[in-house]
Amino acid sequence: MSAHKYIREEAYEANMQLPALGLVLFTFGNVSAVDRKAGVFAIKPSGVPYKDLSPDNMVIVDFDAKTVEGTMRPSSDTKTHAVLYKHWDKIGGIVHTHSTYATAWAQSQRDIPIFGTTHADHNTVDIPCAPPMDDAMIKGDYEHETGFQIINCLQSKGLSYEELEMVLVGNHAPFTWGKTAAKAVYNSAVLENIAQMALLTEQINAQAPRLKDALIKKHFERKHGPDSYYGQ
Amino acid sequence: MSAHKYIREEAYEANMQLPALGLVLFTFGNVSAVDRKAGVFAIKPSGVPYKDLSPDNMVIVDFDAKTVEGTMRPSSDTKTHAVLYKHWDKIGGIVHTHSTYATAWAQSQRDIPIFGTTHADHNTVDIPCAPPMDDAMIKGDYEHETGFQIINCLQSKGLSYEELEMVLVGNHAPFTWGKTAAKAVYNSAVLENIAQMALLTEQINAQAPRLKDALIKKHFERKHGPDSYYGQ
Amino acid sequence: MSAHKYIREEAYEANMQLPALGLVLFTFGNVSAVDRKAGVFAIKPSGVPYKDLSPDNMVIVDFDAKTVEGTMRPSSDTKTHAVLYKHWDKIGGIVHTHSTYATAWAQSQRDIPIFGTTHADHNTVDIPCAPPMDDAMIKGDYEHETGFQIINCLQSKGLSYEELEMVLVGNHAPFTWGKTAAKAVYNSAVLENIAQMALLTEQINAQAPRLKDALIKKHFERKHGPDSYYGQ
Amino acid sequence: MSAHKYIREEAYEANMQLPALGLVLFTFGNVSAVDRKAGVFAIKPSGVPYKDLSPDNMVIVDFDAKTVEGTMRPSSDTKTHAVLYKHWDKIGGIVHTHSTYATAWAQSQRDIPIFGTTHADHNTVDIPCAPPMDDAMIKGDYEHETGFQIINCLQSKGLSYEELEMVLVGNHAPFTWGKTAAKAVYNSAVLENIAQMALLTEQINAQAPRLKDALIKKHFERKHGPDSYYGQ
Repeated sequence: MSAHKYIREEAYEANMQLPALGLVLFTFGNVSAVDRKAGVFAIKPSGVPYKDLSPDNMVIVDFDAKTVEGTMRPSSDTKTHAVLYKHWDKIGGIVHTHSTYATAWAQSQRDIPIFGTTHADHNTVDIPCAPPMDDAMIKGDYEHETGFQIINCLQSKGLSYEELEMVLVGNHAPFTWGKTAAKAVYNSAVLENIAQMALLTEQINAQAPRLKDALIKKHFERKHGPDSYYGQ
Repeated sequence: MSAHKYIREEAYEANMQLPALGLVLFTFGNVSAVDRKAGVFAIKPSGVPYKDLSPDNMVIVDFDAKTVEGTMRPSSDTKTHAVLYKHWDKIGGIVHTHSTYATAWAQSQRDIPIFGTTHADHNTVDIPCAPPMDDAMIKGDYEHETGFQIINCLQSKGLSYEELEMVLVGNHAPFTWGKTAAKAVYNSAVLENIAQMALLTEQINAQAPRLKDALIKKHFERKHGPDSYYGQ
Repeated sequence: MSAHKYIREEAYEANMQLPALGLVLFTFGNVSAVDRKAGVFAIKPSGVPYKDLSPDNMVIVDFDAKTVEGTMRPSSDTKTHAVLYKHWDKIGGIVHTHSTYATAWAQSQRDIPIFGTTHADHNTVDIPCAPPMDDAMIKGDYEHETGFQIINCLQSKGLSYEELEMVLVGNHAPFTWGKTAAKAVYNSAVLENIAQMALLTEQINAQAPRLKDALIKKHFERKHGPDSYYGQ
Repeated sequence: MSAHKYIREEAYEANMQLPALGLVLFTFGNVSAVDRKAGVFAIKPSGVPYKDLSPDNMVIVDFDAKTVEGTMRPSSDTKTHAVLYKHWDKIGGIVHTHSTYATAWAQSQRDIPIFGTTHADHNTVDIPCAPPMDDAMIKGDYEHETGFQIINCLQSKGLSYEELEMVLVGNHAPFTWGKTAAKAVYNSAVLENIAQMALLTEQINAQAPRLKDALIKKHFERKHGPDSYYGQ
């Protein structure tokens, strides 16, 4: 029996949430779940339909993206996951999808403005869109560089991955993360919802202002501050 | 056994309608049902997934938002519900959601124009969007003030909560109410439908005129006037 | 046992297709089916949820909109149906919905341009939008006048109800008809589909041209002409 | 027993995927599957609802569109399929739908710009929209000419049907193909997804740039190049 039963099941359950939440067409998405002690993560095998997934066919990979256990090829985005786990030591799960509205924002190369409290309930800034990569990096170790593209984007804006758990990769699609794989999936669904409402908001009022600071602070803190009073 | 069995069940049933009608993502919504005689209402516990709700875990709260019965923390929006019940003595239920189109209008800070008979079947005015709160109020007792923001919005426009059972809170999202919790949920679904059709109407014809007075009057009265002839 | 068993069942089955096809929210729609020999039609009772419908609670009404059989009040739009049956003697069923996209076009007071073959497969002209009624007519026998508003709209454009089986009533919503109630429901779904695609077409290309005459003729005739070769 | 059991089942299974994937309303679509050795293909019978399909009622047709086996009339688009099979000898299946977003692009007579990696994962060019046919061709052998309209469109742009497996027919709707009928259906769903995201991308940023060459190349080759590393 695998020494990695727990993360296999965590990754499997989280992957199965993607089609259930309407976030993927066919196999256009993947989730991973990490075991920090063992220094490995479990990730979806590449190109396998969701209905054929099981905890057993998740692939176990280390932070250099080397397969440690499993007979299938891991997701083609595995190196991006590996870079993020290696550099961000407090995340427990990562999700990549091509969900419709978030991907459209990524393709438009714009940050998603913070227009309302639904957004502020989750973070306090516009969702950044990392710029497309240099051609040299694309031709090099592309998925590895995508990880750094994400890390550099947050760094250049002075943002912490612990406070902002979602990003758009320009021309490509969203990545989200969280303390668990389930939380990362939750963030993917929230991002898709925010992305749709932001587009609609601009269609209703092309001059719609960003949410004001007092409301951003209030909503984020009631869910996440030291005196938060949301949830149980 | 609880003395508040009836409103526990009413609130539970109404809460379960929100995901069934596609009005909520995760836990982004809540319904309450009031017992006027007892001076209390039953409301969804904060942050609990809909699939885990039961009549038993609804929280019983008085009109000062003090928990009277129940072990869980009530919805973070409880104070808003309490203010509305206290000031509007003929409402029986309240709903708050972040439904996609209504929330987009709230984020755009525009009233929803009355464009057609679907709207006029339910009320005779543009659905008002209350302006965002002053910073001082936001930093103060925010959810309590949200209640007054709604009450003041209707008052400033000379509108009665008995004739207009829905409002947008600017930058935030919709609130609806009604003689029962089920009617308030019905109003939330109607508002979402009106909000979507109003956006589409403006996209098809940027100069689309508001519905003319004779049609507003006719449609509202055939459903709600003294000589109404809709329904059984 | 009712002498009108057949049209009760036809109307019931057709009404149940409206929620199945996503064409109605709550009770915002109704279907009727006619018995030409008996000079009556069966129609949905007013304001009754679809899940509570049965062939038995359909209401039997004559062409002057008088109830002939049934204990419930018929749809508030019954007089419109009655006028159309009285004047158009080859139709067998009528549908009224507030389906989202068709209603948005009605609210925008624009005809739906014929942009493609999906439209031409069903008729050869822009779907007309009847202008809003005069105030005097609205205050008078409103639903009766709505029937004439529809008839006059087609007449003024030289259109035959046998070739064009759908119309928008300005500021209100669509009506469709057909040789049977089932065909009228089919037309409602087709209209909603055409309405959505026409809006999207204008969004993609604001100068999109109407379909050219040769294609309109070809597609309509391959489905409906004397030498049609569609279907079995 | 039919000598064409295999393609009957292949065509049947593929046709049933169209409603499952939300790509058709009523009977507005058809799939065929070819048997190269026998020089025939199996195609949906015309106008038959999907729920009434079975492997047995697929129609077997040769590359001149003559029925070889089967009692029902084949799809009205059969001649288009026949022309494509005759001229493109490496395709195994063809799909035609009127899916909402792809059809809206066809109606707008615009190519779908390549905006992101979801598009580049499948091909490297804008999805071409073939211009509407000359009137003489429309009045002639219309469905036969539609096949050449598609072939000529690719030829005039120097595109190979082996690399680009989807096209829009101006004013009409999309056609897709692939090595199998199942792959052709997959391509139809991908095209609809790309078409929706391209519209949204332009709505978010009217100046959104096309994907840069290095990214187009990278994404296409990681799925389809000689060193592809996507899938198992």
